[in-house]
Amino acid sequence: MIEYAHKRVVIENLTPEVNEGRYPVKRTVGELVKVEADVFADGHDHVTAELLFRRADQSRWRTVSMRHLGNDRWRGEFSIEEECEYLYTVRGWVDPFRSWQNDLRKKLDAGVDVSVDALAGVKLMRESYREKKTKRAVRLKALADEIEAAHTDADRIRLLCFTEELTAIMSQPDPARVSEYPRQLRVQVDREKARFSAWYEFFPRSRGRRRGAHGTLRESERLLPEIARMGFDVVYLPPVHPIGVTNRKGKNNTVNAEPGDPGSPWAIGSAEGGHTALAPELGAMKDFTHFVSAAGRHGLEVALDLAFQCSPDHPYITQHPEWFKWRPDGSIQFAENPPKKYEDVVPIDFETADPGPLWEELKGVVLFWIEKGVKIFRVDNPHTKPFAFWEWLFAEVRKTHPEVIFLAEAFTRPKVMYRLAKIGFQQSYTYFTWRYTKHEFIEYMNELAHTEVGEYFRPNFWPNTPDILPEHLQHGGRPAFIMRLALAATLSSNYGIYGPAFELCERDAVAGKEEYFHSEKYEIKKWDWSREGNLKQIICRVNRIRRDNPALQQTRNIRFCETDNEYILFYLKATEDRSNILLVAVNLDPFHTQSGWVRVPVHELGMDSAQSYLAYDLLSEDKYIWKGDWNFVQLNPAVLPVHILRIHHRLRREADFDYFM
Amino acid sequence: MIEYAHKRVVIENLTPEVNEGRYPVKRTVGELVKVEADVFADGHDHVTAELLFRRADQSRWRTVSMRHLGNDRWRGEFSIEEECEYLYTVRGWVDPFRSWQNDLRKKLDAGVDVSVDALAGVKLMRESYREKKTKRAVRLKALADEIEAAHTDADRIRLLCFTEELTAIMSQPDPARVSEYPRQLRVQVDREKARFSAWYEFFPRSRGRRRGAHGTLRESERLLPEIARMGFDVVYLPPVHPIGVTNRKGKNNTVNAEPGDPGSPWAIGSAEGGHTALAPELGAMKDFTHFVSAAGRHGLEVALDLAFQCSPDHPYITQHPEWFKWRPDGSIQFAENPPKKYEDVVPIDFETADPGPLWEELKGVVLFWIEKGVKIFRVDNPHTKPFAFWEWLFAEVRKTHPEVIFLAEAFTRPKVMYRLAKIGFQQSYTYFTWRYTKHEFIEYMNELAHTEVGEYFRPNFWPNTPDILPEHLQHGGRPAFIMRLALAATLSSNYGIYGPAFELCERDAVAGKEEYFHSEKYEIKKWDWSREGNLKQIICRVNRIRRDNPALQQTRNIRFCETDNEYILFYLKATEDRSNILLVAVNLDPFHTQSGWVRVPVHELGMDSAQSYLAYDLLSEDKYIWKGDWNFVQLNPAVLPVHILRIHHRLRREADFDYFM
Repeated sequence: MIEYAHKRVVIENLTPEVNEGRYPVKRTVGELVKVEADVFADGHDHVTAELLFRRADQSRWRTVSMRHLGNDRWRGEFSIEEECEYLYTVRGWVDPFRSWQNDLRKKLDAGVDVSVDALAGVKLMRESYREKKTKRAVRLKALADEIEAAHTDADRIRLLCFTEELTAIMSQPDPARVSEYPRQLRVQVDREKARFSAWYEFFPRSRGRRRGAHGTLRESERLLPEIARMGFDVVYLPPVHPIGVTNRKGKNNTVNAEPGDPGSPWAIGSAEGGHTALAPELGAMKDFTHFVSAAGRHGLEVALDLAFQCSPDHPYITQHPEWFKWRPDGSIQFAENPPKKYEDVVPIDFETADPGPLWEELKGVVLFWIEKGVKIFRVDNPHTKPFAFWEWLFAEVRKTHPEVIFLAEAFTRPKVMYRLAKIGFQQSYTYFTWRYTKHEFIEYMNELAHTEVGEYFRPNFWPNTPDILPEHLQHGGRPAFIMRLALAATLSSNYGIYGPAFELCERDAVAGKEEYFHSEKYEIKKWDWSREGNLKQIICRVNRIRRDNPALQQTRNIRFCETDNEYILFYLKATEDRSNILLVAVNLDPFHTQSGWVRVPVHELGMDSAQSYLAYDLLSEDKYIWKGDWNFVQLNPAVLPVHILRIHHRLRREADFDYFM
Repeated sequence: MIEYAHKRVVIENLTPEVNEGRYPVKRTVGELVKVEADVFADGHDHVTAELLFRRADQSRWRTVSMRHLGNDRWRGEFSIEEECEYLYTVRGWVDPFRSWQNDLRKKLDAGVDVSVDALAGVKLMRESYREKKTKRAVRLKALADEIEAAHTDADRIRLLCFTEELTAIMSQPDPARVSEYPRQLRVQVDREKARFSAWYEFFPRSRGRRRGAHGTLRESERLLPEIARMGFDVVYLPPVHPIGVTNRKGKNNTVNAEPGDPGSPWAIGSAEGGHTALAPELGAMKDFTHFVSAAGRHGLEVALDLAFQCSPDHPYITQHPEWFKWRPDGSIQFAENPPKKYEDVVPIDFETADPGPLWEELKGVVLFWIEKGVKIFRVDNPHTKPFAFWEWLFAEVRKTHPEVIFLAEAFTRPKVMYRLAKIGFQQSYTYFTWRYTKHEFIEYMNELAHTEVGEYFRPNFWPNTPDILPEHLQHGGRPAFIMRLALAATLSSNYGIYGPAFELCERDAVAGKEEYFHSEKYEIKKWDWSREGNLKQIICRVNRIRRDNPALQQTRNIRFCETDNEYILFYLKATEDRSNILLVAVNLDPFHTQSGWVRVPVHELGMDSAQSYLAYDLLSEDKYIWKGDWNFVQLNPAVLPVHILRIHHRLRREADFDYFM
């Protein structure tokens, strides 16, 4: 303990810090890491706190002065400049020279004689260089001599307190006095798409040229320009592997498939291969790489489904019976969640006695598809495999492919979902699909954006999936689809839809369930891809708005604002520098026109209450001149249930408004 | 990572945990440690969570099953049985047999054929003992054979699911599956007085037989029976050491003492000795030990002031000039907080180049007085000495004297005060002295009792000190003194008064300041110890109530209840088992009668809204029959500004009430 006698500063309660630093916070290039800590010492001396950060692969720390927020809380921030891991920590020390300067100023203010105190300042200078021969020491000695030689106390004090060079030299800490926070914390820096992406999911098999025939990847390529035109940048395909024959599911999840039924793509593996094979109906492997290239030419990335489970016909079962559970009667253990059974799926037994070879094999699957050009994976049910497996897999993949993005499809308990994010998933499915009311949105978004969760959990909002046709879409009609699209695309910077069911406003559900009737999971659908009432144009516009407005390219900048109508959700999204300010008003009632007053936080936006400003609806291209904080909105769901308003508040003269009107 | 493949359970967010386990939580014998943690695994298997605890000096863990609170949060608790350090941690595992039992029950409920599943249960049994020759293995094999030999599935299932012995055996975890929380956390167990104490501070020098003459410790012994009669158990003496002559302070903190002025006891050290000497005016060292013994015979412990600072005449200054700061003109650096100066005090320089000898010397001071029978120290301004010093000192003292209690007199910023508590102070002064309004009390008490602070910070509430005569006591008269006494003594289980100024309702202040006029710090006072209007009887009663009611012997059990009057503070204190329930109502307005409705949380107390119960005022001996939650109180400050009501709610028949009325 005595060895810490001179390290008087305490540093604690550092944020952000995930599980005492075991897990990193997540950022992309350009994002800030805002660090706070309690930093204080005994007594009343001047404390200095510094934020240190560096690339993990470089040794030199860069420093940022932290500023005191009050109550011994300090803040500093740094910006991520490169796509690599960063480290950060905090250090602090008691600064005797600054303490002396502060005391001296107080004495001067009180009119106390300070002639001896001035010399004490010189003494501090001399003590700080004694027995050292550095450039700093030489310069300090020269300054000390000069000050001592000054003719009057006033001169001495001026030199001691107001010489920038001296203050700078003396602010360099004595290492023996510096307390360091005990941990160095990590920043996982992912590429930009981890933060900002728009996903389009579809089943290539429903994209056959001849209606009803099994579509191929070649045929699906024809869809790519349309997906790109709508403004998406990720095309996500359900599993593309051979589908099992044994217990194959028929239409509407029946246990007896009829001849010609294609089965569920998630029943992976047949005599034709397993997780590294392509279903022959979709084409050959060269068609797959061709598809990936074609997508790339349209600015689209292909995301593949990673479903680590097998059909009863998967080659693994004979090659590696030790990777599965066997029942006492010699039969294999099927997937089940009693009393429910999944007859066409066999789970992999991650509790197998020697998991090493299994883990390596599954890693091989990921690397295989990376080799084919896939850099994004949507992981099916990751919460039913051990956390340690994913943590290991991500570390392994990152060694050679740090650009790969994994999306966790875990619809499960919150702490499990958050843990998956902590151990490395770049994006996560969420409860958005089941949040309906204003209160629910505000509560959930504040949890995602304004608690520690936001440091490591990147939400990806889906209004529908092949598994889920939520109640409000079944009943709310086209307005509900538009409302959910706008919410997903503006609340979260990552979102996706399952198409064309979504843009065609498909709402035919299994009675009493949130499932699609004649689900595409079990059959080839004959979609009319341009059916009347489709949302392609509005999707196109929403994605265009997202691309044009950086405020929508992040999630944690959300701030909810007051309204006097429980059906109107109203929120602000702005960039850190306020150069891009959006206000979004959503009518959560798909059946009725709702109107009311909404409160714009004008002061936070640098405006005063008397100021007028242009609110330009990027969706409808309507323009409103608003003034001060409370303004009126009216949203007719049959027309458009949402305003996405860009605020132009630097327009102060009428002439400026004319230009826009 | 692969080595953790079978440790599927995650344990995080364990509470209580202070600074990631660097500091212990504090308890006394009989208190509970309530531990919570997030415990969960991937998938849907049955998770078991266990709290482990042990004496730090023993190796065998004792275990407590934790119960699931929902949302993957688990809770368990253990009771401190002995006065020694304890350790605790949490472990968890996935239980395959319980998972199998759960699944089987669901299948039985759904009417599914389970004949193969039953055999799977037997298989789990056989797998859990294979290749082992333990007693457990032998017994398991016998049970497995018996179950397999059963005639029907129904018999097998009954044996597998409803044999307590089997469930118990199978619930013992496979060590390879057990996840342990990464840290073992400590409990600092102090003796009971650290949790429950009533302090009486006085200046022995004002207790002379001849009025105005310097009192001695022998003379002060005459006061001990009266202090004991009032119900205190700690007698705290300001420093008893020789007082410096140089720059000695005169009456009312003047810089020029007149002949006969005794000086401030905190200006420690003269030619007659320093921190291990007794001021000759008080007597010889044998008088000190005699005083300690006499106190002990009255059930009183003596607390000494530990003020690590010196008068300019302290022997240390010539013996150890290196322990002080010297100014460039060769003069010693006095204590100052610019522009304020403390001319009679020289601070010790803890930044001295070699702090080892200094620290050892100060430790020697503490051990010296421990040797003389002092086991409680009130530490003066601990926040102006390095945290590392105290942490070291306490560890050193604890080696041989774990019974010693240190009270931190740090009136400073909250995080500094909390840090001092973390590093080991058993009790701490607080902001109670400056909390006046209902909102302030509720906010402050909830922070002290119901946040992490309560785990390590034990408040000691003082309505006054020799340094502080707060504004409300200056103006509120006798009712204010009674109100503050009741608040201090019932809000906090540790409290103290500076007497006889307090019980005599002394309210003569320096104009415009919260300081005593003619402060006892600078002169010998001529108190009329039995002055009319004194509070001795009421203090006696309040301390009696505290001794009789275990609910008042802890601080963290406070719970504030609603009232409809802003001037009435109403709170519940009850023991864990509800065998002792007190409700306290305080009129915070010393000038006017206040009345209003107060809400008793009857359901929490095991009563229903229609039930009558006796509320017995332990202070006035008045009795009230209350009913349900909302009841009426009226408090006239001129009579008694407070109810301390004991609730007798097991009285249901009128006859019972008659007995009490």
